[in-house]
Amino acid sequence: MTDTTPEQLDRVLDAAVAAATALRDRTAAERSGHLRAAADALDADADRLLPLAEEESHLPLPRLTGELKRTTFQLRLFADEIEVGAYLHATIDHADPGWGMGPRPDLRRMLVPLGPVAVWAASNFPFAFSVAGGDTASALAAGCPVVLVAHPGHPRLAEATAEVLVAALEGAGAPTGVFALVEGQETGRALITDPRIAAGAFTGSLRGGRALFDLASARETPVPFYGELGSVNPAFVTSAAASARAPEIAQGFAASMTLGVGQFCTKPGLLFVPADSAIPGLVADHLRSVAGAPMLNDRIRGGYEQALRSLAAHEVVEVLAGSVDPDAAPAPTLLRTSAAEVLADPRPLTAEVFGPAALVVEYSDEAELLDAARALEGQLTATVQGEPDDAIAPALLAVLSERAGRVLWGGWPTGVTVSYAQQHGGPYPATTAVGTTSVGTAAIERFLRPVAFQGLPEPLLPEPLQDGNPWRVPQRIDGIQHP
Amino acid sequence: MTDTTPEQLDRVLDAAVAAATALRDRTAAERSGHLRAAADALDADADRLLPLAEEESHLPLPRLTGELKRTTFQLRLFADEIEVGAYLHATIDHADPGWGMGPRPDLRRMLVPLGPVAVWAASNFPFAFSVAGGDTASALAAGCPVVLVAHPGHPRLAEATAEVLVAALEGAGAPTGVFALVEGQETGRALITDPRIAAGAFTGSLRGGRALFDLASARETPVPFYGELGSVNPAFVTSAAASARAPEIAQGFAASMTLGVGQFCTKPGLLFVPADSAIPGLVADHLRSVAGAPMLNDRIRGGYEQALRSLAAHEVVEVLAGSVDPDAAPAPTLLRTSAAEVLADPRPLTAEVFGPAALVVEYSDEAELLDAARALEGQLTATVQGEPDDAIAPALLAVLSERAGRVLWGGWPTGVTVSYAQQHGGPYPATTAVGTTSVGTAAIERFLRPVAFQGLPEPLLPEPLQDGNPWRVPQRIDGIQHP
Repeated sequence: MTDTTPEQLDRVLDAAVAAATALRDRTAAERSGHLRAAADALDADADRLLPLAEEESHLPLPRLTGELKRTTFQLRLFADEIEVGAYLHATIDHADPGWGMGPRPDLRRMLVPLGPVAVWAASNFPFAFSVAGGDTASALAAGCPVVLVAHPGHPRLAEATAEVLVAALEGAGAPTGVFALVEGQETGRALITDPRIAAGAFTGSLRGGRALFDLASARETPVPFYGELGSVNPAFVTSAAASARAPEIAQGFAASMTLGVGQFCTKPGLLFVPADSAIPGLVADHLRSVAGAPMLNDRIRGGYEQALRSLAAHEVVEVLAGSVDPDAAPAPTLLRTSAAEVLADPRPLTAEVFGPAALVVEYSDEAELLDAARALEGQLTATVQGEPDDAIAPALLAVLSERAGRVLWGGWPTGVTVSYAQQHGGPYPATTAVGTTSVGTAAIERFLRPVAFQGLPEPLLPEPLQDGNPWRVPQRIDGIQHP
Repeated sequence: MTDTTPEQLDRVLDAAVAAATALRDRTAAERSGHLRAAADALDADADRLLPLAEEESHLPLPRLTGELKRTTFQLRLFADEIEVGAYLHATIDHADPGWGMGPRPDLRRMLVPLGPVAVWAASNFPFAFSVAGGDTASALAAGCPVVLVAHPGHPRLAEATAEVLVAALEGAGAPTGVFALVEGQETGRALITDPRIAAGAFTGSLRGGRALFDLASARETPVPFYGELGSVNPAFVTSAAASARAPEIAQGFAASMTLGVGQFCTKPGLLFVPADSAIPGLVADHLRSVAGAPMLNDRIRGGYEQALRSLAAHEVVEVLAGSVDPDAAPAPTLLRTSAAEVLADPRPLTAEVFGPAALVVEYSDEAELLDAARALEGQLTATVQGEPDDAIAPALLAVLSERAGRVLWGGWPTGVTVSYAQQHGGPYPATTAVGTTSVGTAAIERFLRPVAFQGLPEPLLPEPLQDGNPWRVPQRIDGIQHP
């Protein structure tokens, strides 16, 4: 992997700007075609891409096969979505001389692309959050060219995926420059500070993401930066649920926290249980039967070791299973403390440990449980294991919906479906942009901005805003939605 | 006007946090009632508020009467809008075992309030962009308490309006702390850096707004900051329109640039005309018949003098009408340069001059006109005066829609209606948040964030996400919109 030179980056950015202009004139049907061609080409090249992914990520083939399926499904779902056209939020206010504050001109609003977008690939999903992953799919769906910063954890896969993607896009008639792969940390910094870039999207560490957010915000012309920075994903077991379903809950939690060697941003890292519950012991038993497995790369493993040792070194934390001196294939590790201790020192005890470790937090009563929930920072997810008539449920769900982007009742947070209602985001430090999602069709809107057109004759209006509505998109007309 | 003390601010913020929690349990109908009560109370107290506004702003009574009407209309329109409920974007994905990427859980997404919002009042609209103005209305409509920083340009009006507003909100059953007025520049800085504040909204100068944006972005927990920082609002007259309608265009431009003594963020400050056009002379004639009028306050007048002198001192600029040494009631002033000069040195020649001045830019051909349009920074508005068959229209409108939040064909940009399709925003430096608007019903969404609920039993779901849909809000169900 060779860093992109400043001269190469300059050419990439000029081509991206030209592609943004060219894309402006493509129909939604044409742009859908680009996305479908990309999906088809990735599926067709699975036999070449999967072995590279296996080799570079240490992830097992079945998991990677499923992830590639998710990736191409996502491209096709977004292709369908932009053909429906609801994402444009086309809104038509006809001129109204009797409008309550005074005569209203003809005014029509829709969303238009922001321009070239910088995307950073993540290491833990070498397909779904990398070269042809969610941020690339949503930016292309929005009509924005993508300059993608490859992750050094899977350089050969990144280059191979980019080749497939670029060939497919060009083959489908997308403008040259609509996608480019660049490499190098310094290249990334040059990218986010370049005036030709209109937005950034990132999935990765708090430190790396915050540094890029700070660069994006400090530009002479600041741009939006959508950083998904991780989460400890607390799970809360009510007294009633602990009494009724301890074995099932322990088994589900152990499976979720060890999925993908704990290397998911939705891995549940905190488990709140009643003080007298059998659950911690049962989770520990399950974990002892899970074999250690290699992590994505040495940098991730180094970060895991450091975070785990730091947590285990806290005087109020004890080790229930596993080891705080992980080897190359770390065994799942369970730690324990109390809610009172979390309330006394929340930050270090609730920090994310990226890898197969979790902290059990024992609470004495439900008032303490609610206090502990209120002490948490912003989260991607929060999970409640409760029973149908649990008296604490409404209050607990209300507190969690103020702190998390996705709130689960039953089930576990790993496994993030791509659909219309998905929300993968949350208050800082879960993300740098609380109003957005990086998974699901709503992710497309991050790369759009509204424009209103006042008094334009029908032929000069963009198609989605014409009274004739040639693209048959949903329109809100004089306040009434027409689906 | 006395600055709010840190202790007072601390109490205000604690009350706002408590109000945010209390508002969570109010129905849309209850919150609509708060907004309508505020509108009714402001209308009822017009006879007390209008003279204060007249005295402190130097704006004429008919203008202020219209502005108050706009302000209460806006509160009522937002009350209607939250009862309709489309702003929640309720989305329901039922569980689907056959979903293309693997089984899908039941997942439901809607928007929820961000929390307490800091709002800065502007001086140029002492009602519509001040205490009970657009940002306050949209934050309250979203369910967010407001801490408003009064503008020192109209302190007595601000305090009187806040009294009316607080009494009306409390009388309508809104929780204590839902609105508070605070005063002082240092108070504003303390506010935007306080962890209890979830977002900021501002209309004012580039320098002041950027400073607050920087504080909001540099917090340990960054928050969105919606700054509307102004614009030079270019207007473009095509050759065909200049030939066909010179007198009408000159008259319309002169009226728009002098409305409210040029103290609108949508004042057209640049007028592109063909080099041989009669329009500049005609505009100058109109301006000579417009009497000078006092500006809002001495700070605004000082800023106007400085910006105007700086522009007029540019060696390529000449004065056509008015004076670059304005007195207490400055006469409208028209300057002139060429498009070639603008292309050679765009920044100083296209900077906003807040007050009754504008720069005519003469272009030699339409290619130069397009180049000049491309050289502009982000704008709130851009206006084209063209003819129906103008060959340049599509290209010019395309360039302008990349640079402005609102693009007009005919008409003039001053006078911003409050409606569903309004967009008052634009790329930086027009605003600090390109994806948002500060006018129109879409402004409500700035103060919301998405939350997805996974697997919740019907009784635990928020009403807008229940299958029974008790609030009768629009829902997107399994990809299909139900209005």
